[in-house]
Amino acid sequence: MKPIANLLDASLARDVLYFLPLGGSGEIGMNFNLYGLNDQWIAVDVGITFADDTTPPGIEIITPDPSALKQLGDRLIAIIITHAHEDHVGALGYLWPKLKAPVYCTGFTASVAERKLGEAGLLDQVALHRVHPGDRRAFGPFWVEWISLTHSIPESHALCIEAAGLRVVHTGDWKLDPHPVEGVHYDDRRLMALGETGVDVVIGDSTNATVEGWSGSEAECHRGLLDVIAKETNRVCVTCFSSNTARLASLGRIAQETGRRITILGRSLFQYVATAKANGYLRDFPELVPPEDLDYLPKSEQLILATGSQGEARAAMARLARGEHHSLVLEADDCVVFSSKVIPGNEKKLFRLYDLLSAKRVHVVTEADALVHVSGHPCRDELAWMYRALQPTTVIPVHGEGRHMTAHAELARGLGCTALTVQNGDLVSLSGTTPTIKAKIASGRLGLSGSSLVPLSDRALSERRALALGGVISVTVILDKKSRLVGRAQIELMGVPSGELGVDALKSELAFAVEEIISELSSRVLQSDDAIRETIQRELGHSIHQWMGVRPRQLVQVIRI
Amino acid sequence: MKPIANLLDASLARDVLYFLPLGGSGEIGMNFNLYGLNDQWIAVDVGITFADDTTPPGIEIITPDPSALKQLGDRLIAIIITHAHEDHVGALGYLWPKLKAPVYCTGFTASVAERKLGEAGLLDQVALHRVHPGDRRAFGPFWVEWISLTHSIPESHALCIEAAGLRVVHTGDWKLDPHPVEGVHYDDRRLMALGETGVDVVIGDSTNATVEGWSGSEAECHRGLLDVIAKETNRVCVTCFSSNTARLASLGRIAQETGRRITILGRSLFQYVATAKANGYLRDFPELVPPEDLDYLPKSEQLILATGSQGEARAAMARLARGEHHSLVLEADDCVVFSSKVIPGNEKKLFRLYDLLSAKRVHVVTEADALVHVSGHPCRDELAWMYRALQPTTVIPVHGEGRHMTAHAELARGLGCTALTVQNGDLVSLSGTTPTIKAKIASGRLGLSGSSLVPLSDRALSERRALALGGVISVTVILDKKSRLVGRAQIELMGVPSGELGVDALKSELAFAVEEIISELSSRVLQSDDAIRETIQRELGHSIHQWMGVRPRQLVQVIRI
Repeated sequence: MKPIANLLDASLARDVLYFLPLGGSGEIGMNFNLYGLNDQWIAVDVGITFADDTTPPGIEIITPDPSALKQLGDRLIAIIITHAHEDHVGALGYLWPKLKAPVYCTGFTASVAERKLGEAGLLDQVALHRVHPGDRRAFGPFWVEWISLTHSIPESHALCIEAAGLRVVHTGDWKLDPHPVEGVHYDDRRLMALGETGVDVVIGDSTNATVEGWSGSEAECHRGLLDVIAKETNRVCVTCFSSNTARLASLGRIAQETGRRITILGRSLFQYVATAKANGYLRDFPELVPPEDLDYLPKSEQLILATGSQGEARAAMARLARGEHHSLVLEADDCVVFSSKVIPGNEKKLFRLYDLLSAKRVHVVTEADALVHVSGHPCRDELAWMYRALQPTTVIPVHGEGRHMTAHAELARGLGCTALTVQNGDLVSLSGTTPTIKAKIASGRLGLSGSSLVPLSDRALSERRALALGGVISVTVILDKKSRLVGRAQIELMGVPSGELGVDALKSELAFAVEEIISELSSRVLQSDDAIRETIQRELGHSIHQWMGVRPRQLVQVIRI
Repeated sequence: MKPIANLLDASLARDVLYFLPLGGSGEIGMNFNLYGLNDQWIAVDVGITFADDTTPPGIEIITPDPSALKQLGDRLIAIIITHAHEDHVGALGYLWPKLKAPVYCTGFTASVAERKLGEAGLLDQVALHRVHPGDRRAFGPFWVEWISLTHSIPESHALCIEAAGLRVVHTGDWKLDPHPVEGVHYDDRRLMALGETGVDVVIGDSTNATVEGWSGSEAECHRGLLDVIAKETNRVCVTCFSSNTARLASLGRIAQETGRRITILGRSLFQYVATAKANGYLRDFPELVPPEDLDYLPKSEQLILATGSQGEARAAMARLARGEHHSLVLEADDCVVFSSKVIPGNEKKLFRLYDLLSAKRVHVVTEADALVHVSGHPCRDELAWMYRALQPTTVIPVHGEGRHMTAHAELARGLGCTALTVQNGDLVSLSGTTPTIKAKIASGRLGLSGSSLVPLSDRALSERRALALGGVISVTVILDKKSRLVGRAQIELMGVPSGELGVDALKSELAFAVEEIISELSSRVLQSDDAIRETIQRELGHSIHQWMGVRPRQLVQVIRI
């Protein structure tokens, strides 16, 4: 069944509340969800995701494809951002010009959104509204309430969305952290109150639905980090997500507790520390020692915070590991703490960093060695707490890969809820006795290629893979008015190993092969440039595969003079 | 310091025993080690490794680069294979023509080596000698003894190499499995006897040197698999390494214990079962049910063994997960057991399989859920046992990435040994009071590109990356005798997204830009094809980057008529 290209072409019923995930269901990343009622829509989160091994070459950043919303116009009345992680707000700068609706979020998130919009040159066009935790606002037929939850960034919110007589809790990203170190407590009172007065649907975070128990508290992580760092007698360098303000606050306190001073390496850490302070967080964070003053500080008093916990090649941590950082050279008996999880797909990159560091006899501590990281997402006992508190009729797992959403659905069913698993593009009616998928709407992914967003299904991107696998040969033949070859066939190669033969000899062999092919063309074929091109591609391709076992792409130009 | 390109150019002293790793040190894969004394050399293992995220596109199989041995000729007197894993024997077919020495190994390994040589069309050229466990043979000045060890394949051997008054134990891959299910016990008596009479150097497996405890036994794994499979009431499908004969033997017994019958899906499983049987293993393995007869067997009596435990796209397991296997469709409440570890780098590929399976409501069991896999490599307590038994003066860790070799060296030092860490290309003198690195010999990697082996440093391979990142544009301009443009500039594109403009319009824009560039060339530049080419590349490249933010490669052809 071909998905409906334009949302407005779906037969949308009156007074029915619709939910439409266009990103973040079946994946962890690029969250983009819509709610609609009587021709008015709100979007919840506009995130990016990052390339993985399935992404075409040359693409690093991926956004949801909002093409199905093209006709919405001012029917899209609000974009609401639950919290400031990249997979929830990161695509705002890229997609806002296609969405053009006012944006609503709380202060910390707004600071990050503002940065994104500024980088895209959109600040003067976008109405960015700051709301407060606990606020309840009307957007057309929707009432939306911001409910504080704990997570791994300040100001993560569930949204209680009321419309068409239904109450939907869209959880955003959350955990139950009894001691969140920074920011407010999760609003358990409000959640329980909602449960008492009735919740129809919860649409929520599946990330850790396969993990037993609780995710743990930032306060425990503080103690774990303190244990590790207190034992070290040389320099200690910690890398974590820059947006994890609680973790930074813990490290600030640990610096004081262990007689160390903090130096920051890496731009995104500076940015997030500034954002946090501007929003009232990190009040006790110590004065920084600038990188250029590190030499004046005994190693035992140094605590370095570095960007790049996922092994990103250009970030501070990878530079330190490679010995290429201009401010600091790590030495034997220094310690590096990865206060972070390994995001699947980054394992080899990180193992290479561990190897480089251990070759320098630097002590490497990861979450496998000590309690130096806690997850920001709810494990099974936290999910169970939530469903006991909210008592929803139906749970719709989102924010997870297939196995996470399946486990989440099973857990919800075990607690007596109905569960519906969805994929991006599923148009779900939330009204009626039980939510049901009514149609498939076009969804997809756009890749940032240079300065433009290109569908990942664009033919040019799959051509890149073919170019990568076998290289490319360009062949130019010039024919005169009688379709006779003028001069030699011209060959250029790129990405085709010539082995012991050498490039020039290979080019000459290929030119000879092309000339042979042309000499045997019938006069009928010679009349058509396309026929000549196809024959060369087929026959030359066959010869090359026989000689060398490879299949380079061919660009054949037939020029008549 | 530039490595010495030809081993014979190193100043090699008389009566000194040399060790030269050319593959497998600093990595897990492509083991290739040499021992030399008085101008005679033996090679131990000739393995491949597989592409990872650092490998140029289009390369899947990688071998060590034996260029430094080119001049050895008949100074290379033997190739000894310790066991039949791909990283120890897999490159024999590719590299033998460059090495041309007789090959020595025990029966099971010889069967696998024979297959490799057959596939390379070399069977009639290679002298392949079968030895027996416990044999002690002279190769020139070397005595080599085969000592049985347990591992995850039958017939894994340590080699005791005696030469120049030294005794070196080259461990190969091993573990201490008290109940190996198939194959012989590890020869602890012989190891202890060697220890009593003195071992100078151990060169050994570092894979699990960061893992505490013991690797566990195949017998425990049998019990773990039985527990899982006995509970299932529908079809069970197990994937594991095809070469793990003990695991296959366990599964054969479990089939009998649970009233199931075995069906094999995937060519390499058939091959290894045949190889095992031909060498006296799997004697009690049950009769197979052919895939086409599965329909006649109740699901509760089916036990399917499938290839592809690492999520290889073309193997049986991935096809089953995608629902594309021609013999079998998995259904809700079937169970899939991954009786294998996740090799680093394969995480995302495997997680995608788990997602596909859980979407079908198939139960997925991995080593994270139950004891369905044990490693074939020694953990820290096994390493300690070995060094207490052998009491070597020096330990040289190999077969590991940096962190594994570092941990192995530290463990050995903790047991009172000297430890020397080496990298591929380090020429080590084992004679004298303590082994020392004497020179750096050229080492490297060859990638199988089509039918030829190409150095991974080949420029054509790095061009493939550039092609992948930005695509390619070919530009052809024809100039007449007065260096005036004849006709239009010809443009072809590949891998360059044209976005909303469309391909034809983009080509036309680019042709126009090229014509503009040419119209402004000075008469001096117009005299040189190279100067014209460079100017077009520079200026057109600049324009494209400004317009689209991408940097395609350019193939520019200047033709004069």
